[in-house]
Amino acid sequence: MEKQTAKEWKQLWLSYTKKKNVGNDPFLHTYRLEGFDRENRIVRSALEELKKGLSGMLGIDPSEESFAPEAGKEHINEQDKANSMQGILILRRLIPAGNNEEGYSLHEKEGNIILEAGGEKGLLYGVFHLLRLVSMEKSLKGICEAAGPDNPLRMVNHWDNMDGGIERGYSGNSFFFENNEIIVNERTRDYARLAASVGLNGVVINNVNVKQAATYLITDRYFEKVAQLAEIFADYGIRFYLSLNYAACMELGGLSTADPLAEEVQAWWKEKMKECFDRIPNLGGFLVKADSEGRPGPFTYGRTQADGANMLADAVKPYGGIIIWRCFVYNCTQDWRDYKTDRARAGYDNFIQMDGDYRENVILQIKNGPMDFQIREPISPLLGGLKKTNQMLEVQVAQEYTGHQIDVCYLIPMFKEVLDFHTYCKAGADTVADVISGRTLGNRNTGIAAVINTGNDANWTGNYLAGANFYGYGRLAFRTDLTAEEILDEWIPQTFGSDEKVLETLKKILLNSRTTYEKYTSPLGIGWMVNPGVHYGCSVDGYEYSRWGTYHRADHLGLGVDRSDKGTGYAQQYYEPNASMYNSMESCPEELLLFFHHVPYTYVLKSGKTLIQHIYDSHFEGYEEAESYAKAWDELEGLVDPEIFGNVKERFGRQLQNAREWRDQVNSYFYRKSGIPDEKGRTIY
Amino acid sequence: MEKQTAKEWKQLWLSYTKKKNVGNDPFLHTYRLEGFDRENRIVRSALEELKKGLSGMLGIDPSEESFAPEAGKEHINEQDKANSMQGILILRRLIPAGNNEEGYSLHEKEGNIILEAGGEKGLLYGVFHLLRLVSMEKSLKGICEAAGPDNPLRMVNHWDNMDGGIERGYSGNSFFFENNEIIVNERTRDYARLAASVGLNGVVINNVNVKQAATYLITDRYFEKVAQLAEIFADYGIRFYLSLNYAACMELGGLSTADPLAEEVQAWWKEKMKECFDRIPNLGGFLVKADSEGRPGPFTYGRTQADGANMLADAVKPYGGIIIWRCFVYNCTQDWRDYKTDRARAGYDNFIQMDGDYRENVILQIKNGPMDFQIREPISPLLGGLKKTNQMLEVQVAQEYTGHQIDVCYLIPMFKEVLDFHTYCKAGADTVADVISGRTLGNRNTGIAAVINTGNDANWTGNYLAGANFYGYGRLAFRTDLTAEEILDEWIPQTFGSDEKVLETLKKILLNSRTTYEKYTSPLGIGWMVNPGVHYGCSVDGYEYSRWGTYHRADHLGLGVDRSDKGTGYAQQYYEPNASMYNSMESCPEELLLFFHHVPYTYVLKSGKTLIQHIYDSHFEGYEEAESYAKAWDELEGLVDPEIFGNVKERFGRQLQNAREWRDQVNSYFYRKSGIPDEKGRTIY
Repeated sequence: MEKQTAKEWKQLWLSYTKKKNVGNDPFLHTYRLEGFDRENRIVRSALEELKKGLSGMLGIDPSEESFAPEAGKEHINEQDKANSMQGILILRRLIPAGNNEEGYSLHEKEGNIILEAGGEKGLLYGVFHLLRLVSMEKSLKGICEAAGPDNPLRMVNHWDNMDGGIERGYSGNSFFFENNEIIVNERTRDYARLAASVGLNGVVINNVNVKQAATYLITDRYFEKVAQLAEIFADYGIRFYLSLNYAACMELGGLSTADPLAEEVQAWWKEKMKECFDRIPNLGGFLVKADSEGRPGPFTYGRTQADGANMLADAVKPYGGIIIWRCFVYNCTQDWRDYKTDRARAGYDNFIQMDGDYRENVILQIKNGPMDFQIREPISPLLGGLKKTNQMLEVQVAQEYTGHQIDVCYLIPMFKEVLDFHTYCKAGADTVADVISGRTLGNRNTGIAAVINTGNDANWTGNYLAGANFYGYGRLAFRTDLTAEEILDEWIPQTFGSDEKVLETLKKILLNSRTTYEKYTSPLGIGWMVNPGVHYGCSVDGYEYSRWGTYHRADHLGLGVDRSDKGTGYAQQYYEPNASMYNSMESCPEELLLFFHHVPYTYVLKSGKTLIQHIYDSHFEGYEEAESYAKAWDELEGLVDPEIFGNVKERFGRQLQNAREWRDQVNSYFYRKSGIPDEKGRTIY
Repeated sequence: MEKQTAKEWKQLWLSYTKKKNVGNDPFLHTYRLEGFDRENRIVRSALEELKKGLSGMLGIDPSEESFAPEAGKEHINEQDKANSMQGILILRRLIPAGNNEEGYSLHEKEGNIILEAGGEKGLLYGVFHLLRLVSMEKSLKGICEAAGPDNPLRMVNHWDNMDGGIERGYSGNSFFFENNEIIVNERTRDYARLAASVGLNGVVINNVNVKQAATYLITDRYFEKVAQLAEIFADYGIRFYLSLNYAACMELGGLSTADPLAEEVQAWWKEKMKECFDRIPNLGGFLVKADSEGRPGPFTYGRTQADGANMLADAVKPYGGIIIWRCFVYNCTQDWRDYKTDRARAGYDNFIQMDGDYRENVILQIKNGPMDFQIREPISPLLGGLKKTNQMLEVQVAQEYTGHQIDVCYLIPMFKEVLDFHTYCKAGADTVADVISGRTLGNRNTGIAAVINTGNDANWTGNYLAGANFYGYGRLAFRTDLTAEEILDEWIPQTFGSDEKVLETLKKILLNSRTTYEKYTSPLGIGWMVNPGVHYGCSVDGYEYSRWGTYHRADHLGLGVDRSDKGTGYAQQYYEPNASMYNSMESCPEELLLFFHHVPYTYVLKSGKTLIQHIYDSHFEGYEEAESYAKAWDELEGLVDPEIFGNVKERFGRQLQNAREWRDQVNSYFYRKSGIPDEKGRTIY
């Protein structure tokens, strides 16, 4: 193990502190492996975890059953079984595994607990699930559960830079990189354990904006250390990915072009990929941000996105690799005077015509909304809009626009809305969850990715409460049917213990926190209004006269962007009936009203309030709700770990300051612009 | 000479290119020194400059007259004179010099040109003036001129940081510092020559925000190099100053306090100042920014600004040193909701009550306006408001808020307005020029300082046209009666030669450029509306909800800040009749209307236009004027040096972009807010 460069760290939901043994004692002193090779790296990890968890939580040190079938006998006979099977944990490989290599079931049978899994990863997930139940103080008695992942790919994307900084990171610096060197230590392993425990199976360790030293991750300068990192993730069934600089063939290879159709480019990448897969074990493939926000890409050479992606896909194909290609392609030098160009349209417009042109090992990674991770956006029409292309949903667990892990904002309810959205792309299997699970198109190279919220802060996520987003994202990626509340019912006891008041208080705070944040920031789907660059704090006009395509178009009569067929036509990118629903001010869901329509301040909402009064009310309410959370948290003093208490309390203090600025600035801005006073006569400046 | 680290550089108005000899030939081949010591460092500089200039411009290599009075004869007798005095230049010390050590006169007498000066500096200035006349192709025949400096102190303040960056620098990096080391080379000398040529006599080489390495400028780490720099300036009669870290006694001295009344603090500074004046020749004293924008100061210890300044003044007094204390003290963590606190009031409120409490060797340095170098501000009421305290005016030649040396903005007309302003502090001697010259109070420690606009760009000032501000500032500091036009009549021929079209075109552009910039940026004295931090480009609300105390208070009915007696009361800080004039919307000069009053958009100005129409019109006009300058410049192609032509053309291109953004953003903002359309139906977005 190396010199410890990252800060000391916590174990979060894997802290394995002493738990009540709610009658699980009889099952857990002995385990038996059936059909699994105890020398397999993942099996070894599972057994280590089992011992660590049971020892910490129940003081049990489980031992492997010494019983073995007689020599020559392939299977245990019934009598043998009867003799041996009393109160043990059987870890059994299910044969055949079919497509269920990652699935597992847990049931009690004849006094034993049987964990059956189709493969080693399923075994690992099953062990973590068993430990989760122990941690939640659930009895295993009579258990009968089965679970398999809904999404084939369940990935985390790190936007870590090699200088140690993290783009949009709010939890300290990178624990992968420092001063252009790679960090490999016990924390890496703990991170892999945390990720695997919630069912994640892929990690991209470096920022999608690949510059400077990061371009060299695929060279001798770093191969050795990269391989060490990749090996650690391999122990936990997590495939290893890198973000790629599309222009690497020029920067590293000295070519004068990166034209994907140029032979020398293709040849360079074929050679380079051979080298990468030779040198980096457990390599799954690459993530590419091309032609986006100044990054190089095939557009430079008059080629399509498909040309670029396919060229790389061909190069990684011999090694079973995949290319994940981001769809965040838009004009970031827009003129604010231009009311016709619409950034929301860009992803669809740039990618829809090439539907079907991509190799089978290319996946398009699509942000949940058409803009950029705002607190409220419609679902990207590209999801399900593409009918012949592998798709991966990208969400952002890092709280870039949602409070910087200062403000509490439990994002799982938002992710649920995205997953449950009916795209109407195919009868019976048309939700986003259907599309990215492969159910819609019957494909396997699909899934979900999250820009993750971790850093080298001791508690990994800055605000302890942001741990719920890391945990929840993984669980939801694995089982999209879990509710936001069910996830909290798991995470809270594992993190805070079993105090009922803590559970109830935190559930109330977290389940409502996203709506609260929305209320005191930007109203009714309009988004933005943030300080440019930093993306925290209010600046109503911060992006109004900018080149970023992010406008609210507020004037003295109203605000919002007309994206109907009379405006930019964005609403028409959806299938019916969504297109018509969004197109009309009356049928448009009100939480997205200003995203789709330019609406007068005097427009009356379904609540009977005018738009302007709604803006005032929601901002006052949002602040009051934040205040009530801070108070509720204060009442938990003594019931939660003092360090956690202090960490969260300090952040609530900053959240209230932030919420107050948002409330007063937004209300003052729209009052000053509309001249319409608050009906309730509250203070507006 | 050291390794050349700064870029190669130009000689600007001292380029001494070949000039027409308009009959000056008979006077300039021979010179004679009378009463000056040719070994004096400043005399030597003057003679070197004379030779360099005459050789370059006229091809004349002047020699010193070999004639000398007979041994034993103290003065030349009449016969000797008659023999020798035909067509030479006599450099004569005027005895007694009185207070006119820096003054000079030039006249023709009996076929000779006589340059008389009260001291070496006067001689140097006189030589530069003579060369200026030659460069302007003026005949010396019959000349009869006299000039002495109006301001005792004529300083430049460099905001150069030791890492090489310049705070608010728009001409490259520092030519004094690089990587925390001091640069001493020929460029330093050329800079001293340029400064002396326009009559400057003091330089502060480091940023007033003294941090990190700069704190150590007064220690052994840097003394040797600092001394070398100071010696170069001494050759040109320029006193050398440093900006001081008020907390140096803690950071360097290890004291636990910087309380100015603490004995150990006083003792530490006494010792330190002895060391400084021992080690640094030509040291004039120190500039201090205390209790301002996060800098340490006496307020921390419950002491007054006078306590702090006097403590340092006592420590430098034995060496004839002075302490220049900045008055830029205000609350930079204001709440935008607070309509009562007024940053404009702060300088006056913080300093007026201690009037008379300062040592004789303390000077308060006061920015021209009460805010911060906006394109239009009223004059600081502290200037002349103080009646028993030495005052120095601070202007900003660096174009922080006035176009970053991208947009052309000749600042001399603005400085003239400041100098000519009647404060009504004393009958007959009440202008700012009177106050800072010492005429009002009969004091000598007074003068003017400019945050200068130079950097290591080859042409010193980024935009060649910004050279007019460097030149003009120096000339105006020396002779406050020069007009903005007279200064251009000097600068243009010295920089561009004698082409009439160039002269006329540039005069037209430069004389109007400040008004043009004002027209397309912030209207009627409201200021700000810039991008926060960078201070270039438009962001109408950029500072509106910030902590900086810089608000426009625009709502749907009007805009402006009420600083009358019904508002913040700032207008009452002036003497009558200024106080009453500013207090009333009717009598307030319209160019400052929004600085002093919150005015409805429908208010009718003296022009007959409404306020809102004025905003629209002035922004359209401002852009058109900028466009006309760019066109006019294009017509000079071939008439000016190609490199200068390209440099300025490129900047006009950027200025037009900037002006267009300002025009459209300001107009759109106020149209969207007021709902009142442009009478002329022009495009507003």
